[in-house]
Amino acid sequence: MRETLEALAAGELSVTAAEARLAGYATGEAGRFDAAREHRRGVPEAVLADGKSADEVAELVSLAVETTGHGLATRVDQPIADTVHDRLAADRPDATTEFDERTGVFRARAAEYDPPDLDAVVGVVTAGTADTKPAGEAAAAVAEMGATVERIDDVGVAGLHRALDRLDDLRRADVLVVAAGREGALPTVLAGLVDVPVIGLPVASGYGHGGDGEAALAGLLQSCTVLTTVNVDAGFVAGAQAGLVARAIDAARDG
Amino acid sequence: MRETLEALAAGELSVTAAEARLAGYATGEAGRFDAAREHRRGVPEAVLADGKSADEVAELVSLAVETTGHGLATRVDQPIADTVHDRLAADRPDATTEFDERTGVFRARAAEYDPPDLDAVVGVVTAGTADTKPAGEAAAAVAEMGATVERIDDVGVAGLHRALDRLDDLRRADVLVVAAGREGALPTVLAGLVDVPVIGLPVASGYGHGGDGEAALAGLLQSCTVLTTVNVDAGFVAGAQAGLVARAIDAARDG
Amino acid sequence: MRETLEALAAGELSVTAAEARLAGYATGEAGRFDAAREHRRGVPEAVLADGKSADEVAELVSLAVETTGHGLATRVDQPIADTVHDRLAADRPDATTEFDERTGVFRARAAEYDPPDLDAVVGVVTAGTADTKPAGEAAAAVAEMGATVERIDDVGVAGLHRALDRLDDLRRADVLVVAAGREGALPTVLAGLVDVPVIGLPVASGYGHGGDGEAALAGLLQSCTVLTTVNVDAGFVAGAQAGLVARAIDAARDG
Amino acid sequence: MRETLEALAAGELSVTAAEARLAGYATGEAGRFDAAREHRRGVPEAVLADGKSADEVAELVSLAVETTGHGLATRVDQPIADTVHDRLAADRPDATTEFDERTGVFRARAAEYDPPDLDAVVGVVTAGTADTKPAGEAAAAVAEMGATVERIDDVGVAGLHRALDRLDDLRRADVLVVAAGREGALPTVLAGLVDVPVIGLPVASGYGHGGDGEAALAGLLQSCTVLTTVNVDAGFVAGAQAGLVARAIDAARDG
Amino acid sequence: MRETLEALAAGELSVTAAEARLAGYATGEAGRFDAAREHRRGVPEAVLADGKSADEVAELVSLAVETTGHGLATRVDQPIADTVHDRLAADRPDATTEFDERTGVFRARAAEYDPPDLDAVVGVVTAGTADTKPAGEAAAAVAEMGATVERIDDVGVAGLHRALDRLDDLRRADVLVVAAGREGALPTVLAGLVDVPVIGLPVASGYGHGGDGEAALAGLLQSCTVLTTVNVDAGFVAGAQAGLVARAIDAARDG
Amino acid sequence: MRETLEALAAGELSVTAAEARLAGYATGEAGRFDAAREHRRGVPEAVLADGKSADEVAELVSLAVETTGHGLATRVDQPIADTVHDRLAADRPDATTEFDERTGVFRARAAEYDPPDLDAVVGVVTAGTADTKPAGEAAAAVAEMGATVERIDDVGVAGLHRALDRLDDLRRADVLVVAAGREGALPTVLAGLVDVPVIGLPVASGYGHGGDGEAALAGLLQSCTVLTTVNVDAGFVAGAQAGLVARAIDAARDG
Amino acid sequence: MRETLEALAAGELSVTAAEARLAGYATGEAGRFDAAREHRRGVPEAVLADGKSADEVAELVSLAVETTGHGLATRVDQPIADTVHDRLAADRPDATTEFDERTGVFRARAAEYDPPDLDAVVGVVTAGTADTKPAGEAAAAVAEMGATVERIDDVGVAGLHRALDRLDDLRRADVLVVAAGREGALPTVLAGLVDVPVIGLPVASGYGHGGDGEAALAGLLQSCTVLTTVNVDAGFVAGAQAGLVARAIDAARDG
Amino acid sequence: MRETLEALAAGELSVTAAEARLAGYATGEAGRFDAAREHRRGVPEAVLADGKSADEVAELVSLAVETTGHGLATRVDQPIADTVHDRLAADRPDATTEFDERTGVFRARAAEYDPPDLDAVVGVVTAGTADTKPAGEAAAAVAEMGATVERIDDVGVAGLHRALDRLDDLRRADVLVVAAGREGALPTVLAGLVDVPVIGLPVASGYGHGGDGEAALAGLLQSCTVLTTVNVDAGFVAGAQAGLVARAIDAARDG
Repeated sequence: MRETLEALAAGELSVTAAEARLAGYATGEAGRFDAAREHRRGVPEAVLADGKSADEVAELVSLAVETTGHGLATRVDQPIADTVHDRLAADRPDATTEFDERTGVFRARAAEYDPPDLDAVVGVVTAGTADTKPAGEAAAAVAEMGATVERIDDVGVAGLHRALDRLDDLRRADVLVVAAGREGALPTVLAGLVDVPVIGLPVASGYGHGGDGEAALAGLLQSCTVLTTVNVDAGFVAGAQAGLVARAIDAARDG
Repeated sequence: MRETLEALAAGELSVTAAEARLAGYATGEAGRFDAAREHRRGVPEAVLADGKSADEVAELVSLAVETTGHGLATRVDQPIADTVHDRLAADRPDATTEFDERTGVFRARAAEYDPPDLDAVVGVVTAGTADTKPAGEAAAAVAEMGATVERIDDVGVAGLHRALDRLDDLRRADVLVVAAGREGALPTVLAGLVDVPVIGLPVASGYGHGGDGEAALAGLLQSCTVLTTVNVDAGFVAGAQAGLVARAIDAARDG
Repeated sequence: MRETLEALAAGELSVTAAEARLAGYATGEAGRFDAAREHRRGVPEAVLADGKSADEVAELVSLAVETTGHGLATRVDQPIADTVHDRLAADRPDATTEFDERTGVFRARAAEYDPPDLDAVVGVVTAGTADTKPAGEAAAAVAEMGATVERIDDVGVAGLHRALDRLDDLRRADVLVVAAGREGALPTVLAGLVDVPVIGLPVASGYGHGGDGEAALAGLLQSCTVLTTVNVDAGFVAGAQAGLVARAIDAARDG
Repeated sequence: MRETLEALAAGELSVTAAEARLAGYATGEAGRFDAAREHRRGVPEAVLADGKSADEVAELVSLAVETTGHGLATRVDQPIADTVHDRLAADRPDATTEFDERTGVFRARAAEYDPPDLDAVVGVVTAGTADTKPAGEAAAAVAEMGATVERIDDVGVAGLHRALDRLDDLRRADVLVVAAGREGALPTVLAGLVDVPVIGLPVASGYGHGGDGEAALAGLLQSCTVLTTVNVDAGFVAGAQAGLVARAIDAARDG
Repeated sequence: MRETLEALAAGELSVTAAEARLAGYATGEAGRFDAAREHRRGVPEAVLADGKSADEVAELVSLAVETTGHGLATRVDQPIADTVHDRLAADRPDATTEFDERTGVFRARAAEYDPPDLDAVVGVVTAGTADTKPAGEAAAAVAEMGATVERIDDVGVAGLHRALDRLDDLRRADVLVVAAGREGALPTVLAGLVDVPVIGLPVASGYGHGGDGEAALAGLLQSCTVLTTVNVDAGFVAGAQAGLVARAIDAARDG
Repeated sequence: MRETLEALAAGELSVTAAEARLAGYATGEAGRFDAAREHRRGVPEAVLADGKSADEVAELVSLAVETTGHGLATRVDQPIADTVHDRLAADRPDATTEFDERTGVFRARAAEYDPPDLDAVVGVVTAGTADTKPAGEAAAAVAEMGATVERIDDVGVAGLHRALDRLDDLRRADVLVVAAGREGALPTVLAGLVDVPVIGLPVASGYGHGGDGEAALAGLLQSCTVLTTVNVDAGFVAGAQAGLVARAIDAARDG
Repeated sequence: MRETLEALAAGELSVTAAEARLAGYATGEAGRFDAAREHRRGVPEAVLADGKSADEVAELVSLAVETTGHGLATRVDQPIADTVHDRLAADRPDATTEFDERTGVFRARAAEYDPPDLDAVVGVVTAGTADTKPAGEAAAAVAEMGATVERIDDVGVAGLHRALDRLDDLRRADVLVVAAGREGALPTVLAGLVDVPVIGLPVASGYGHGGDGEAALAGLLQSCTVLTTVNVDAGFVAGAQAGLVARAIDAARDG
Repeated sequence: MRETLEALAAGELSVTAAEARLAGYATGEAGRFDAAREHRRGVPEAVLADGKSADEVAELVSLAVETTGHGLATRVDQPIADTVHDRLAADRPDATTEFDERTGVFRARAAEYDPPDLDAVVGVVTAGTADTKPAGEAAAAVAEMGATVERIDDVGVAGLHRALDRLDDLRRADVLVVAAGREGALPTVLAGLVDVPVIGLPVASGYGHGGDGEAALAGLLQSCTVLTTVNVDAGFVAGAQAGLVARAIDAARDG
């Protein structure tokens, strides 16, 4: 602790960073950032932009970069991305940022940030075009945790041959995240064909009864094969869980 | 009409049968039997035993035999079957009866009954053991309407090769009834592989969220392929609809 | 296969069309189009515009025209229709397009496209004005598959005589698609009067408890007559299933 | 009040009856009976046997007879009926009782009870056998309030001619209670044909999605005609509301 | 019939009016107007503006005026009201119109229209400000049917004295429509205090669990007093049902 | 801690009691009893008998008596009560037990147990007979925590005068627990009349839509007055929360 | 009463204020304001701006200030706040107003208003940034009732140490309001650690299944600890209930 | 294949075992057993006894032993266990069986069966007594797949210290299965404290709103930490998924 206080006194450390080191969190105007989560949990703390103002997102991402060297925000649109970018340009001119409008993921990294690198492959699978956003979120979480992402797209069960054509790629992954909307049959079909953990990611496509992803979610919970699931459109959670499995495998390979 | 009245006066026709011919229905103690439905609708009127006493079922089946020459009851258990059998033995000693405990279907036919015979094949498909009862109901409805039943059992998607092994049989049918519980993925997968109408039959297996067939039903309604569905466990309805399609095809072949 | 490769080498076939012939699908920027579905399934692959950008819809319709000679998109509004039209005008100047704003259906056909022609009649029935859109979708699917569409409109059960006045028209069809919102009683009433297959199409009219078509759907699933159903507002699915029945009848008539 | 107290002192009135006259309710071991309701509300207070012990039902019916001259209990089975009968035989040997097992209604009347007599007709309509119990409850409530009950049974919409055959009877009633389970279409169809108030009574028949009367209830709430509804199987409420309308008409006819 | 045809030939009757007299309905571009409903049913056919274009509403109101002498539309906003007004000004310069923005009700009457006049009072009760719109719809339906409307406003149960202060007014009505949102307790409390029929009108106020009127509706269905209900915000249905009761009372008074 | 260990070594303390003092919980065959909860939380730990075997309940109650001097079990039936009684007779012959079959509450107290005594009154109110069990549970929790229970029974809103007659008693309490099933209007009505905290206790009476207490719960959550609620039939929770308020008031009065 | 009338006659009292004193409510154009509620109930009547026009809110707040000396409105946005402010500036130039956009609470106080002052502390706790609005509403209600508010923010269970760090603050309060969205675990965890009443305030954050606060609400109702709950986002109700507990404690301390 | 056929011809292999080797499944009277699943999927095929007759379970377990050397059945009660035991005693006298009534798991192993052995630890955690059965199912699946099971019981969040006392054990596992009923907060709390994958297992305890495990499931899906979930009471699925992660780690450690 003394070290931290000395660095603070010497101006080598911001108050925010000092608080994060000592208390495990950093307090900003938009709330408190759980700076210790990544270390404690192995998962980066992502800022969910839904229901937050652009300034709140920018504040939290900036806190993240200051206390952990990098930041991730999900469900970001272009105006929010611009605000966060500008804020970081002011706060941390050394940081690089990246925004992908199709997946809504914003990423920032300080110059000195040393990203993790895991020896494990996570397959991220989609049934069709409507799965792009949550699957992209999942892939971003996996990538940020350092595992290799293998994308296998547009293999929905309405045309079964599309999936069977990619069986080798599917079997090469150490763990699969399988996104699917509508009736959500794809994760069940794939989980009957591979021997690695499958994480179902229900997608809020569809309409009428069972729409908004409820049919897909119920189908995953009732699946006649072995798999686990996350909530509808919870791409980050699915990806981060896959990342935790990848970390465990990487550690064992290292071991 | 005169003919009917003369036959009644001459004692050649029961009052019940006369009422059925003239009014289209026959009134008994357990309610009114819609004797004209089969002719008007092309579908035999089946007695649903659920929520009726054994005596009511027996009364209604007896009315059916008297006015249409045959009778069908579904969701019958052994004690009800015994009561119906005894009642028919008394009322119509010429009638033959048949009861299958696994499917809960009871059938009775008067000696003079001339069953229909359709030149069309209905495939009745199950994903697994839990689908036996509703699929059996569907098959019984199809058979009573005179179409050929082709059973394709235990081809659930958890082991996809089981379905692919039967693809030729599936494609040979003129129309398919596909039963499936749990997540209900089988009808969707099969409807992507054949070019005939597929009728989904959700089954009330499964437990927890989406149990009692709700996940399967929602999955069928959200299916990313073209199919129609009936209510959970509505085997008779699925079979009778398939029978109507078979009748139309038979008529066209005759045509 | 050689034939395809030679045509490609000779510049007589686009890469897209070649991929579609060989792999059964064509890959574009907006995803993969299942070009083999129509042949395998007997149903044209329609592009659901809901939740897609105008460019994605245009891309997919263009792929459809290129690989199957025609394209169909549903739930299209005027701006999307304009985009698709412009894209096709550039990609396929020979193609004709058609857009009906009231039903939201967009259709495109290449000059050389030879549409199917089935010897069968599909009745498309509405209870009232609110059913126009899904019933129009259903009729478009039927027409695209080549069957004759017979429209029977505004015959809701609140004024029963309106339906009874059209009984002859109803009985003339080979299969009926019956749309109904609110309490959804019309398909049940009609299915008690005709002897052909009836496909219920619940419509998302109504408000309060059971609104958004849920009451109509539940009523169709609980119908005391024989019929099957599709999801709320799933006009394309209802029409395509009717089209499959029409195809089977046509084949039998040909047979 | 003095009169009541004098009668009590003179032994001409029980403590219970005195409490009922003064406070409007009578207190027994099984709770408090709202003796003033019938006068205040125009509706007899019926004892719902569901979830009460036989002794509690007997106590409450006995209180009802003592304070209002008559008693009504619903959802009674044979053992409860026997207990209530025995209790009344002991408490009020002058009272006559009546129990109908098919409808579950128990009725008791003191010798001096002078039942009301209304100049109005309530039609009680059923779609089929499954509606017997709630329709019977409704009819019992109507009868207890003094209106004439006209039963019109087994006229479900699957065979529309059955209802059309009874149109004159339907139009003769001053108000209709229409019971219906499954999809509950009958009240909607009838309410389009008559010009008196229609009260829908959804019945808990049916199975699967929308079962337990939920589809019928939702259908009544969404009805495209004018009608009001009660809860599933709430036969007493439907009958009593019809009775209140009959009372108003009777009063107007008297007027 | 001849009379109608002669009037048409003589130009004294429009084609629309002739069709309405002969067939019971009139066909316009926006669908078919059930012109016979008012006569058959005793309830004016109101045009529900929700989900219809301004032109469709105008067309249907104009048909109503032409065939029945008056027209009613509900859930109308100012722009729609303007369109309907302009259309009527063109089609029927003799007609008078009236629009109340707070209740969303639009009314039109031809010069020769002779409105009904019933000798009966309908009380329309609200719990608070949020009930204004559906209660206004109910009152408009009652008024159009010719009964006297008695408004009793802002008597919600949170301040019970407000309702008790109006007890005499409440008891003066022949039938009550009681609107209530949130927990919907008011109709239950009032139905315990009066001896006329009470029709509950649940209102879509409230938020969170049971919001959108679902708690109020469920409370009305479970009410421990006798009352019937309509769907959430179904003011027109509640008012029209009260109007039917008023008609019956009026007829009896006349009788 | 040394004290505890010395007492254990000297045989003055059981191992169980020693574990409870040191770790805050005691481990038995049926699970772990949270012996410190009462001290930490101010609420006795009650054993919920639902879903436990008689032996498990007996084991846990015995652990409770051993470690805290008293024990409480809810949802107990006679056979379970007998088992618990026998077990305690063997384990703790000094303890007294009490079982009330109507409320399902079982209570045991060691000879040396010194029950708390709070200077505060909790009113426990019921609408009718059906509320007996959960209200009894609530009263038992209050009594066990030492507050005075004031019962106010059978004051449901269908007869409003019954509640108004008891207004003085209602206002005398420091906090109210108000049970109500069906539409659950009573807590809302009472909370508009008193100025102390009201805790609503929804009861699982009623049937059909909103049955099993769901309508009552939704009504409490939507109440237009200020109150909080517990889950359906959660009498113990309602009573214990009232007890916590009573404790705070008692402490302030002492203060 | 005479006093009030004399003051009115003398022009010392407005008609509104006189009506409020005599009848307990004041009638304006936007409805009736329950001026006696605060006195009868101990809770200020807050105006819920949701679903009201700016003018209606202004009218009601002005009535509140006129009849009770202060006014509170919730779910107010900036345009409504401006309207209310302007209205009060005109009606009551002496009044001070205050608007907090982040919590949506508007407050007005007449110059002569003497706010209550309670000797009790209410802790208002949030799990994270998304809880700001409802927690702010709760705090405003508490403050308006005169208790001391202690805010404890951002202590969600994902980083348990944040809550444990604040345990002393949590234990210092007399009663806790604990807001939480998503899975709503925080109130349960805290209620296991303190011995004062805990009121759960579920928040409508989250998405997919159980979103809109439904998961948090269900979790509070199922909590394995003792607590009560309010509806989703019902911050005012939670705060006012805490205020009532604070009043009782304050009275006891005074006592 | 020849090898298999020769062994069959030589009587060294049963027809069943031969079919299993060649087709991947074995057909018995009770349906088809997917003998290849374990190899293809890495998960043993468990027989779910729910909804199957004792004979069907026995038949399927016997098929499993014959074709894969071992068998597992879940949700078994004592009578079914006896039937299966007897059947195996007849079919495979060499097999050993084991039945645990508290968890409902039945296990059989042929003499020659060589169970897998994985170098990985799966923690199986319960909140309380009510979680015994599903947690036991999960542990059985893990054990059958060869991983080490570490049980951590009775650490529910109502007494947080119980979980904190076991933190070292929790962190020692490679993957955690955390069972929890009621509000289901435990998995969320634990997932905030460890850096390995957590699989939530919602349990069908609790009552009222959100009962039957629905609140726990919704809470897991909304968890503010990273975890995945299975359906309510799906202990086998949770355990098998943990087993798949353990297999991947074991393979990596071997690697």
